[in-house]
Amino acid sequence: MTEATKNNGFNVLGTSPIRPDGLDKVTGQARFADDFHLPNMLHGKILRSPHAHARIISIDTSAAQALPGVRAVVTGADFPPVKHELIHAGAAGVLNVREMAENCMAKDKVLYDGHALAAVAADSPHDAELAVNLIEVEYELLPPVMNVRAAMADDAPVIHEDFHPGGFIAPTEKFMPNASRVQLGSGDTEQGFAEADLVLEREYTAETIHQGYIESHVTTANWDSNDHVTVWTATQGQFALRDHLADIIQVPISNINVVPLEIGGGFGGKERIYLDPVAAMLSKKSSCPVKIAMRRDEVFRATGPSSGTYIKLKFGVKQDGAITAADLHMAYEAGAYAGGPLFLGILSSTSRYNIPNIHIDGFDVIVNKPTMRPYRAPGAPQALFAVEQMIDELARALGMDSIAFRMKNLARTGDRLVPGFPLAPIDTDLMMETVRAHPHYHAPLDGPNRGRGLAYSIWFNIGEISSARIQVNPDGSVILATASPDLSGTRIALAMQAAEMLGIDVEQVNPSVADTQSIGFSVPSVGSRTTYGTGTIVCEVAQEILNQMCERAALLWETDADQVTVENGTFSNKADPAQSLSFNELAARMFETGGPISYHKTGTTQSFIPGTAVHLVDVEVDPETGKVDILRYTIFQDVGKAVHPDYVEGQMQGAAVQGIGMALNEEYFYDEEGRLKNASLLDYRLPTSLDVPMLETVVLETPNPAHPFGVRGCGEISIAPPPAAIANAIHDAVGVRLDSMPMAPHKVCAAIKAKH
Amino acid sequence: MTEATKNNGFNVLGTSPIRPDGLDKVTGQARFADDFHLPNMLHGKILRSPHAHARIISIDTSAAQALPGVRAVVTGADFPPVKHELIHAGAAGVLNVREMAENCMAKDKVLYDGHALAAVAADSPHDAELAVNLIEVEYELLPPVMNVRAAMADDAPVIHEDFHPGGFIAPTEKFMPNASRVQLGSGDTEQGFAEADLVLEREYTAETIHQGYIESHVTTANWDSNDHVTVWTATQGQFALRDHLADIIQVPISNINVVPLEIGGGFGGKERIYLDPVAAMLSKKSSCPVKIAMRRDEVFRATGPSSGTYIKLKFGVKQDGAITAADLHMAYEAGAYAGGPLFLGILSSTSRYNIPNIHIDGFDVIVNKPTMRPYRAPGAPQALFAVEQMIDELARALGMDSIAFRMKNLARTGDRLVPGFPLAPIDTDLMMETVRAHPHYHAPLDGPNRGRGLAYSIWFNIGEISSARIQVNPDGSVILATASPDLSGTRIALAMQAAEMLGIDVEQVNPSVADTQSIGFSVPSVGSRTTYGTGTIVCEVAQEILNQMCERAALLWETDADQVTVENGTFSNKADPAQSLSFNELAARMFETGGPISYHKTGTTQSFIPGTAVHLVDVEVDPETGKVDILRYTIFQDVGKAVHPDYVEGQMQGAAVQGIGMALNEEYFYDEEGRLKNASLLDYRLPTSLDVPMLETVVLETPNPAHPFGVRGCGEISIAPPPAAIANAIHDAVGVRLDSMPMAPHKVCAAIKAKH
Repeated sequence: MTEATKNNGFNVLGTSPIRPDGLDKVTGQARFADDFHLPNMLHGKILRSPHAHARIISIDTSAAQALPGVRAVVTGADFPPVKHELIHAGAAGVLNVREMAENCMAKDKVLYDGHALAAVAADSPHDAELAVNLIEVEYELLPPVMNVRAAMADDAPVIHEDFHPGGFIAPTEKFMPNASRVQLGSGDTEQGFAEADLVLEREYTAETIHQGYIESHVTTANWDSNDHVTVWTATQGQFALRDHLADIIQVPISNINVVPLEIGGGFGGKERIYLDPVAAMLSKKSSCPVKIAMRRDEVFRATGPSSGTYIKLKFGVKQDGAITAADLHMAYEAGAYAGGPLFLGILSSTSRYNIPNIHIDGFDVIVNKPTMRPYRAPGAPQALFAVEQMIDELARALGMDSIAFRMKNLARTGDRLVPGFPLAPIDTDLMMETVRAHPHYHAPLDGPNRGRGLAYSIWFNIGEISSARIQVNPDGSVILATASPDLSGTRIALAMQAAEMLGIDVEQVNPSVADTQSIGFSVPSVGSRTTYGTGTIVCEVAQEILNQMCERAALLWETDADQVTVENGTFSNKADPAQSLSFNELAARMFETGGPISYHKTGTTQSFIPGTAVHLVDVEVDPETGKVDILRYTIFQDVGKAVHPDYVEGQMQGAAVQGIGMALNEEYFYDEEGRLKNASLLDYRLPTSLDVPMLETVVLETPNPAHPFGVRGCGEISIAPPPAAIANAIHDAVGVRLDSMPMAPHKVCAAIKAKH
Repeated sequence: MTEATKNNGFNVLGTSPIRPDGLDKVTGQARFADDFHLPNMLHGKILRSPHAHARIISIDTSAAQALPGVRAVVTGADFPPVKHELIHAGAAGVLNVREMAENCMAKDKVLYDGHALAAVAADSPHDAELAVNLIEVEYELLPPVMNVRAAMADDAPVIHEDFHPGGFIAPTEKFMPNASRVQLGSGDTEQGFAEADLVLEREYTAETIHQGYIESHVTTANWDSNDHVTVWTATQGQFALRDHLADIIQVPISNINVVPLEIGGGFGGKERIYLDPVAAMLSKKSSCPVKIAMRRDEVFRATGPSSGTYIKLKFGVKQDGAITAADLHMAYEAGAYAGGPLFLGILSSTSRYNIPNIHIDGFDVIVNKPTMRPYRAPGAPQALFAVEQMIDELARALGMDSIAFRMKNLARTGDRLVPGFPLAPIDTDLMMETVRAHPHYHAPLDGPNRGRGLAYSIWFNIGEISSARIQVNPDGSVILATASPDLSGTRIALAMQAAEMLGIDVEQVNPSVADTQSIGFSVPSVGSRTTYGTGTIVCEVAQEILNQMCERAALLWETDADQVTVENGTFSNKADPAQSLSFNELAARMFETGGPISYHKTGTTQSFIPGTAVHLVDVEVDPETGKVDILRYTIFQDVGKAVHPDYVEGQMQGAAVQGIGMALNEEYFYDEEGRLKNASLLDYRLPTSLDVPMLETVVLETPNPAHPFGVRGCGEISIAPPPAAIANAIHDAVGVRLDSMPMAPHKVCAAIKAKH
């Protein structure tokens, strides 16, 4: 056997075939969670707290129970006490099972407006809604704590009497009643600042924002008489959902099957568990399958947004442009329970620069808001909003070109990325030079109140555990199953890698996302990992399929497998050039040599594969209204080998639009009692196609040596630069610095007014 | 690593735990094919020929099309012409795709009463039935050919103008217009008969019989806009069904998913395809999922029964009991298309005896009946009915004890089973000695018209291709998936083997049967293969799981994997006896060492694993009515290691009851036009619990060296001896030989009358 075609140029990668789920989606045949129905299915509705912070004194469900059509009512008292609190959950770090359970259904206290505390299953959604409204709850109101600075005040109300740190990627030490703390650093910042010719200190804030996926959360659960539980839902991680569900409802993991359906947007917000344990408990009580669908207001009030933040930072720089020291105080909202995106915010804040003396003091802060969940490059937009404005300000103060200043301080391959992780191979200079050479960088800005800004990001795509299975059929068609939900076209991107490796047409490969009973474990589709990490495992499985097919050809030719070569899907006998079989011909002869071939693998791939991006934006600011219009926008991104260029471009543009939304419009408005006032898509204004021009893309393809075809991740990074790039452009246009996200018109107006 | 616990006595095997599907089945929650519903699902009905043999002149579907509620109508003209006629389909031998397709939907000719020739999908089953009755067909009637002797007559009507042999296990040469022929032999029969002291020649016939599964055939198919086809049905082989469906409807195999649901009896009759292509074509035309459920009369008229036969045999024997020669003429109905159970009938006829000179002349004969399909030990009951009566008659003629005569001629380990296959290890003497030593063999027969008979069988359980996957979860629970439909409790029998190998409780293992997108290929659940063949692969997968877990323990203990031993689910460090982890403890630490473990394998196991059985029966014959009552019945069977003794006993008893049904009651009644007159369970009388006494069982457990725990198959063999054993008992009781199956009262009466 020989290696596959990977060094002979690509046959499939770099083309943009139609995705296999495309026709189903445009014809309405694709099955999303809300399209899923079962016979005898009941409909569940959830009673949610109208209070941001209160003790539950009593819940009276008797009137709800008595309503005709009601088949089951559950409260927190129906859920089993958890066996063990802390679990190590792979990529999700350390999770607190009790808190995860109570976030799904409160027990003693409600911690945010929208916190679930009872649920009803009835014959119709209408009956269930009526019944929910008949549940009477007595509360003892407590003072709400609505932002990180209030929560960290000495006299702040204590939200959790019994508080444990816990978190995404790494747990952090407990600090103050409502916060846990993590510190990272190297060098000596005191000395670094002493060496500096210029020291700037700034403060930046950001408001809470939501992922804004169009599909609401919907789940259907069935708990059968054998204590086997099946869940049909849209999730980014069927295995994480399964394992967390098992912890909460306490049945063996092997009794649960989570069937991932099509997903209408996730962006990190569909990685965790909300409705599934509630639907399962209602199903257990009613002996019927139960479906629960969130209304839009429930999505905003009770599913994981991304953190509001407070970041204070101090940078020192020499006259030649070298940054000598940086000191960052970064406080990220955790929401109701510990474990927000703080750590990723810290990692993304400064690791793209080589700063010899640095200290970061990070705080994961409990507030009376829904529990924060990952949102596409979690924590990075907020961090970049602070740091990339600081970089811009320093460059201007030194009179240096923005790119030149960054290149002076650029982290390069092998430099320390974070403690313990050197920056894996990537060409960061190429990125900078590509931007500098691009016409947009030099185009004139015609007109007043116009400005240009840029921001630079590195993001650490993860690899982690993936599973894939390939089955070769006698007609040459190939089944490819993975455990990675398809958020963005990964079925076709993975099928393309299999086809490339096998030397066949991508149309011969039917890719699918398997349920938890049908394939080995995988971490969720998060961290830009699927095309790279799952893709690597797909390639390894395909290579083993080729090896097995070589063995089959050897049997047919009565030779040894190492005498068989395969190239571009053609198997040949080294010793006899006349003996040759195409992939399909050999597949058709599998029954003669042991039957159809299949191979399955669960494997781990390297994490911290860097991607880079620079966003370059021209804006025009209306000084009367404070409205910011985007005139031109170019996304430069290094994605490694672009498997499906159309979808790579789509990821770059989609992420950028979300970043533009947080930059200019999006935020949670809470009133003084801690009630969310804009829990609708009308009031929580996502950007539309009318708000942005065509976003130009420049794709760099520096190969990733950890992937057989050089693929990196591409899904997340481009959400991070827009707020900072736009802020820098606004400053360029009208000379004011915006220190608060979103940069809504009233803030821009106020800043302009304050300047004059 | 070391081997598992297999040599240290069994922890799980030999116990009889509750099956995981048991509670669902007794509470009605188990999902059989008729319990399956989809939104917007249409109901299909099939128009079937009332004629046994006719040319289709025209089909007018216009009135059916016009009926309100009708969404699609298909006839044979809607099916694509097949690309290639003959396919090599593994264990199923050579199949003729065109004939398989036309058996599902006739094109030019109808070949049996009940042959499908059009179908309708409508909003309700009632609408569909109404519409089917509006379809007008013009036929040119042809003379029906209703049994093998008529079909083999020189002047027989030709059923197929274009006839190809084809068949189960092996194709046979074409012979005469309606038959194909296979001959097997060794030695010189002429000389053998010349050496004999006694030569007997006899003729036996058997009528067509049906498997009589209680669950009718039901399928639901959905053909989506991407040409992906999903089928939910009860089948013995989801992969065979998938591959055959792909051949008939001509979509790539990878586009099809066949989801096997619970099955309410198969016995070989649910291995092939009937409704699925029709439902798929109706779904394609209507763009809706379509369900088709057969009525009971359709099951009898149009699904595969087992052959009526004509067997003429001549045996020569020496005075000392040695059989010197045998000559058999065996004609088996194939039904409408070639490929009946002839070859298995031949193999089962005489291979349990060492006959030096033998010639078998076999005929697979087309008749105007539904296409014959396998029925539990296909062809064997009919063959044994002839041969074991001959053996009984020879022993009596020589004045020898029946067991002693058989032992004189017994095939033993290493003897030629069939050409090319020596008899794999089994203790046939032990079987005979066990029978002879049993009290039943010597018990007095009190009363007149009572008699005792026995019959002996060897059956060749197959191994073939199987797939299995095991996933170990962090809580120690284990998912076991196989590709083998569970006809008889194989989920628990396979879970027990996994648990035994892994050293855990069987309750920790959740076994399931996977769909064709979710696991590698397997041949169907046929040939008594699942517990042995799939079980072997399950054990191999479990062993690899243990190997991987040893590697994980080695990582935790910072040692080499070969330093880790595992016994009864406990992993230990050879070098440090203090280091030890239970299966569950090690499972809980998988996230520290690379994540959850899974392993999948598709593999082949040895076929022709013999099982043996002797049935010993006491009957009382009512000479007035000819009714035969079974007084006492003992089944001796060598099953290898009995994994789940309760279910082994159930298989032995269930098979024997079916054999008793064919012996005494069951047969197809056709009128002179070839119309089936007893197509209902009322008129086709299966035996009930009132017809048989408790069937005693004696289980022998001679280990099968080809399986890690010594398992053989046990499902089929005990259907074969009852007709012969009962016939021998009738002869013992009233001195007459019955030469025709079933031995219905009128035949017994006639035989008694003829004797007097």
